[in-house]
Amino acid sequence: MGENRMMSLGALVAARDAGKAAPDLMIALSRDAIARKDPAIKAFSHVAADPPVASNGPLAGIAVGVKDIFDSFDQPTSYGSPAYAGHQPAVDAAIVDLARRQGATIVGKTATTEFAFFHPAETVNPHNPDHTPGGSSSGSAAAVAAGMVPAAIGTQTGGSVIRPAAFCGVAGYKPSFRLLPAAGMKHFAPSLDTVGLFAATVSDVALFAVLLSGRNLAVEPVDPAKIRVGLYRCAELGSADPDMQDALSAAADRAADAGFDVGEIEEPAALTEAREAHSIIQDHEAGLACGPDLSRFRDRLSPRLIEVIERGQAISPQVYDEARRLAKRGRAAAKLMFGEVDILLSPSAPGAAPNGLETTGDPRFNKLWTLIGGPAVNITGFKSGQGLPLGIQAIARFGRDRHLLSVAAALEPLFSGPQQHQTPG
Amino acid sequence: MGENRMMSLGALVAARDAGKAAPDLMIALSRDAIARKDPAIKAFSHVAADPPVASNGPLAGIAVGVKDIFDSFDQPTSYGSPAYAGHQPAVDAAIVDLARRQGATIVGKTATTEFAFFHPAETVNPHNPDHTPGGSSSGSAAAVAAGMVPAAIGTQTGGSVIRPAAFCGVAGYKPSFRLLPAAGMKHFAPSLDTVGLFAATVSDVALFAVLLSGRNLAVEPVDPAKIRVGLYRCAELGSADPDMQDALSAAADRAADAGFDVGEIEEPAALTEAREAHSIIQDHEAGLACGPDLSRFRDRLSPRLIEVIERGQAISPQVYDEARRLAKRGRAAAKLMFGEVDILLSPSAPGAAPNGLETTGDPRFNKLWTLIGGPAVNITGFKSGQGLPLGIQAIARFGRDRHLLSVAAALEPLFSGPQQHQTPG
Repeated sequence: MGENRMMSLGALVAARDAGKAAPDLMIALSRDAIARKDPAIKAFSHVAADPPVASNGPLAGIAVGVKDIFDSFDQPTSYGSPAYAGHQPAVDAAIVDLARRQGATIVGKTATTEFAFFHPAETVNPHNPDHTPGGSSSGSAAAVAAGMVPAAIGTQTGGSVIRPAAFCGVAGYKPSFRLLPAAGMKHFAPSLDTVGLFAATVSDVALFAVLLSGRNLAVEPVDPAKIRVGLYRCAELGSADPDMQDALSAAADRAADAGFDVGEIEEPAALTEAREAHSIIQDHEAGLACGPDLSRFRDRLSPRLIEVIERGQAISPQVYDEARRLAKRGRAAAKLMFGEVDILLSPSAPGAAPNGLETTGDPRFNKLWTLIGGPAVNITGFKSGQGLPLGIQAIARFGRDRHLLSVAAALEPLFSGPQQHQTPG
Repeated sequence: MGENRMMSLGALVAARDAGKAAPDLMIALSRDAIARKDPAIKAFSHVAADPPVASNGPLAGIAVGVKDIFDSFDQPTSYGSPAYAGHQPAVDAAIVDLARRQGATIVGKTATTEFAFFHPAETVNPHNPDHTPGGSSSGSAAAVAAGMVPAAIGTQTGGSVIRPAAFCGVAGYKPSFRLLPAAGMKHFAPSLDTVGLFAATVSDVALFAVLLSGRNLAVEPVDPAKIRVGLYRCAELGSADPDMQDALSAAADRAADAGFDVGEIEEPAALTEAREAHSIIQDHEAGLACGPDLSRFRDRLSPRLIEVIERGQAISPQVYDEARRLAKRGRAAAKLMFGEVDILLSPSAPGAAPNGLETTGDPRFNKLWTLIGGPAVNITGFKSGQGLPLGIQAIARFGRDRHLLSVAAALEPLFSGPQQHQTPG
């Protein structure tokens, strides 16, 4: 795919603030990159014709790609579905309005799977067009990876931020639940739907969160000796690809070599149970939230989407309420666990991006953390035997977003060093 | 206002199930009542021209009024705002689709204050047209009170179910947070926005919740001696009108006379602090969720709405996050408190419906319980010196909805007996 040099948000903001890059030029650079690269990548479902450029504001001159699951008043919003082809909302989603108020330019809407579930978009992986970019925030991850925008916005209900970030080799940040506003997105499972961000590196994505939200989330130096890092031993770990298992071991080793206090953490039983509860909660809520679409547009929904909506509608409220109780117990268990460890490391996905565009991969390493509601970030650097990115996910306690981003920024360069593959192919 | 005999959902369902009333006829009765009464009451912002009537389903033949804060694909949805006059959503809100799937007929959209905040609708109080019906679910409460529909749907972010129910003299039920789905409503403060229900009596509103949600919420007999009822002594209590203070005392006395285990509960400090946090959380979230409307439609929003959105946008995320921590502590304190008491009694509002239509009343007795997220129900029966309804609110622990409804149904007839006014006018 030729050069995919990513745009660094931090470098762009620094150049702008030093008077070396004007917002107009910065947006023009992104728009030019989109015009050259997107015909092959297909990260955008819609490119704005002549988007306004703010001269002031913390995000002035920053080209942002917005997952087409969020409403935008000036660009069509189709939620990845033919049922909404050409749909034009009256107003922006809250996060889009917020980005504009901070000076960002919304250069286009990025491709999403249908209703942010599994039916894939046309987007390809910038590292290899035969492979999926992941989903559901396919276009947002690919647009950053291909160097078309320095920042993009997505959502995660199962693993839709962390997984595409991993597959595309970018930093993906799923904040603590409700840190960023979800109003005006097309909801799939409202108690899980979490707004997340993409950028080239961890410090870039943290900067994006700072400039967008006004929160103090900028990465700060950490003392490795004071950070307890836990390699998270969940039952799913054995099902990860061999090169992912190697990458996770290497991640733990490199962190230990750098002075972090590294150990292993066995998954508490309450978290194993909570992971099982995720699908019940997601499907039941989707049965309600997407029920109106099934009632109106059945002939324009994919069979897989129809199946999950109907499955969700068949889940009784009693079963749903019991799953919510398991989720609550899981959150209490996570709080206890994070008394013993600061940061967990876990695969971002079972392996590198699968070959083929029919599937966007598997969220089994993500959905527990979406349910628990704490922050997670994809750290890139490791490569599969085929040379595709292998993402390692760092996870922290609810509300400890800044600490997580700071530690992840310290780990990121450690994961990019030379790598030995101990397992065949 | 002549006769305002309410329609009983329980009686209608029983007649239908006994073959004594056909769904077509039941809907025709409601539509006739709307045609006769609504020109004076103005409970409906839109009346459906020829709504379909289902012959089967648990809500077949039940005419439901839906607050015009919820999307409906076949009726315009204006959120109480000239900015959305004639707005036609593509699909229903989740709760509207659910009601239809259970067989309900959506006979019209009921009037709401602007964006479910404070700028009033045109609706009048069916008990006295010079008085407010309360808000923001003004039309839903008034439509039930005036005998136009047996059931209506609303929302509460501050006190928008319990207060209009109290002012209009109907049963209003604010379920535990997320018991009913909110997707497809116009959000104001998503972490507080709660879908609620209206009907003539507590057992009717419980039946509506059963038939709508499929949950086991039907009222069951209770043994008063086993129910600990707490008269809730919050600081606001002294600011209630004298006849409301009398009504609350009478409510406690009558419950004790009927054998309930009645005592007084002092407000824990953590709940006083949580009440203060409500406005910060609400306003900050409104600044985000309604920011897009301010950006696009400033000239079509009321000054009061513009003020709250701008105030919310000026609240820093740090202040918001601290308010969320206070809310969390409040929920933990409420859980402890509900170890000592089963049901709290508190005013539903500071008094009866105020004179005038410029204000919809004050949510100071409601907003804490919206924030805590447990169930609350308005119990009618008491009257003010002017003969207007005075509502008593019963509150229970999160998830104990059925228990609350059962106890409230047992209390309701006790509150309807003859009443002596000890304080002048």
